Amino acid sequence: MSARGIGAVIVPMHEQQHASFRWLTRGAKVTRGYAIKLAGREPVLVSYPMERDEAAATGLETRLAHDYAYDRLFREAKNSAAGYAHFYDTILTDLGADGSVAFFGNVPFQLYHGVAAEVEARGRIVYRSDGEDLIQLGRKRKDAWEIDAIRSVGERTELVIDRVRDVLRAATIDGDRVVHDGRALTIGDLKQLVSFEIARHGMIEDHDTILSQGRDAGIPHSRGDASALVRPSVPIVLDIFPLDRNSGYFFDETRTFCVGPIPDELRTIHGHVLEAFERARDAMRAGNPASLYQALVCDLFEHRGYETTRRTPATLSGYVHSLGHGVGLEIHEKPSFSLSPANSDVIEAGDVLTIEPGLYFPERAIGVRIEETFVVRDDGTVESLCRGSRALEP
Amino acid sequence: MSARGIGAVIVPMHEQQHASFRWLTRGAKVTRGYAIKLAGREPVLVSYPMERDEAAATGLETRLAHDYAYDRLFREAKNSAAGYAHFYDTILTDLGADGSVAFFGNVPFQLYHGVAAEVEARGRIVYRSDGEDLIQLGRKRKDAWEIDAIRSVGERTELVIDRVRDVLRAATIDGDRVVHDGRALTIGDLKQLVSFEIARHGMIEDHDTILSQGRDAGIPHSRGDASALVRPSVPIVLDIFPLDRNSGYFFDETRTFCVGPIPDELRTIHGHVLEAFERARDAMRAGNPASLYQALVCDLFEHRGYETTRRTPATLSGYVHSLGHGVGLEIHEKPSFSLSPANSDVIEAGDVLTIEPGLYFPERAIGVRIEETFVVRDDGTVESLCRGSRALEP
Repeated sequence: MSARGIGAVIVPMHEQQHASFRWLTRGAKVTRGYAIKLAGREPVLVSYPMERDEAAATGLETRLAHDYAYDRLFREAKNSAAGYAHFYDTILTDLGADGSVAFFGNVPFQLYHGVAAEVEARGRIVYRSDGEDLIQLGRKRKDAWEIDAIRSVGERTELVIDRVRDVLRAATIDGDRVVHDGRALTIGDLKQLVSFEIARHGMIEDHDTILSQGRDAGIPHSRGDASALVRPSVPIVLDIFPLDRNSGYFFDETRTFCVGPIPDELRTIHGHVLEAFERARDAMRAGNPASLYQALVCDLFEHRGYETTRRTPATLSGYVHSLGHGVGLEIHEKPSFSLSPANSDVIEAGDVLTIEPGLYFPERAIGVRIEETFVVRDDGTVESLCRGSRALEP
Repeated sequence: MSARGIGAVIVPMHEQQHASFRWLTRGAKVTRGYAIKLAGREPVLVSYPMERDEAAATGLETRLAHDYAYDRLFREAKNSAAGYAHFYDTILTDLGADGSVAFFGNVPFQLYHGVAAEVEARGRIVYRSDGEDLIQLGRKRKDAWEIDAIRSVGERTELVIDRVRDVLRAATIDGDRVVHDGRALTIGDLKQLVSFEIARHGMIEDHDTILSQGRDAGIPHSRGDASALVRPSVPIVLDIFPLDRNSGYFFDETRTFCVGPIPDELRTIHGHVLEAFERARDAMRAGNPASLYQALVCDLFEHRGYETTRRTPATLSGYVHSLGHGVGLEIHEKPSFSLSPANSDVIEAGDVLTIEPGLYFPERAIGVRIEETFVVRDDGTVESLCRGSRALEP
């Protein structure tokens, strides 16, 4: 903050939880609140009387909005933006904030576009980063307790995947159907099982799990068709990324399964994806740019004869996405593996990130991805937080 | 839009789903995308190649970010804000947008603070509402299919509450413990049951359910202490507000239970809350300001000798919150029942809203709230979407 001349950071949360607020407030279970951090001081949490216990439970210094004549300020303001500007100005004065004030987080744009202008009208400088999110930078390297929290989500995520494996293993093949408990299994059955197991293990399925097969599996983010029957001898991609109900930390893991006889082409493609996965994993070291590993995997896949978006940006076939991403209170955070010249992210000890190469051929009804979540150790190498088999056989 | 001179509305979504994007895109299951709505035209959804199927499934007109030279624009931009501004400018020109451009939604503030300035630098006028959210206004009156969606969440929410009732009914009292299946029941056991049942019925527990007893119940938004043993003869407040996994619509319902002998004081307070609930419900009519009903309930409670925040804004005891709120793709939306002079919300046919009076006495370990979700019918009266008993006895 001080390097950028920022005296105070304000992270508001208006009924829509977001990672920056969660991180600064240590996961405060409030529906609205304002985290105010002065340079060199612990954050202060401003909340509402109905949620005073939840605010206090964070262990942070707390204030009530009503300590700052909240009701009166808004009654007298010409609009809500002016009301908030007066409110924040009062808090900053009370806390003794100097220098510019920076707003961060995913907040209602119309409101804060106005708040920023009104805060400036009150003589304060509003910091402008043009995109860089300081809080996200602060969240990149994880503390030991954060790694433990993510590890715990990982252990439970494995249990969910195990249940899917159990069902696929126990299933029998009847023509072009996969039969379990006497009836033809659908993608929806597997999705329901995943949802149920995620909840049972104290986690939340924030976004729909990716569970797709055949052509759908050939499109990386296709959620899959719930009514479709599970088919033998086609790839089934299960990409699961739950978060812990209490800590809010995510985990991310993908397995590609195939029930019944595995076609040679699928076996070969899977082998190449696994090769890329292992090469990236073994090569990854703290201190290097993350983009180096995206380039490494592009080199490998292109050498094997596959198309990549590095060589052909518009391709929908071959290797069409980034090698991975950071994981924390957001499912996609720093570091980025993008090859864009604007990406200067470096692998650092304490990073938690995924490695997830994949190959996609929607026109041939094939898609394969292998993904695990890793922590970058103090010695600079990466350790997987996953344990289950990477094989096509469930 | 045209009344405000807005030619184009842009609702961006950067990995954090929010109601405005969900509404404009009919629930697109994408992780990133941009909904662009020109006055008098259906929205266009701009998404990424990996999610082209999910974008197409919305039935909206779609474009790929890459149709607008996305990669090149960002590579050549001085920062991400300038990149997005160029990108949006290109899209708006392609779609033939005239007039000012308005950004809405909960978006990364630092990025869009910069995007707005860069879009203006390109000669376009950026609309500024200073707080008013046009999309939220558009979402207030629900269509028939939205009411059906909310009704369906309500039916499943009742099933979850039924399960809690079943457990409390089957329980026996052993001294100051409530015993079920041979062991002392905790608040955490009930919370786990609720989480499990919510997932089983295809819903998401986006925020922690409020399940609190005694003193905690006396603080309206206290989440409750999971390790606490369930006690006889104290109020247990269950406030449950799941959303549907597919439609994204919320439901909101609160019951207050008491296991074992019910103290007279609690019985009396519960009776007064129920009286307020029924009075507000019977009086409510389309065409009236929502604040009228907050005033009605304050009148009633003050007449009965209780403190209210209308009379004593800082009170933590008595009637300390608003009578209700709209329910839709957000758990709290329009109309607002606030007595603030700035609140001009009117009850209208098609509104879906809660009525939820409560009385709280944390120092006496008592809190009672009764809440149901209602739809405002075409005849102007309200219809509850809940069916279960409002009694203290589970």
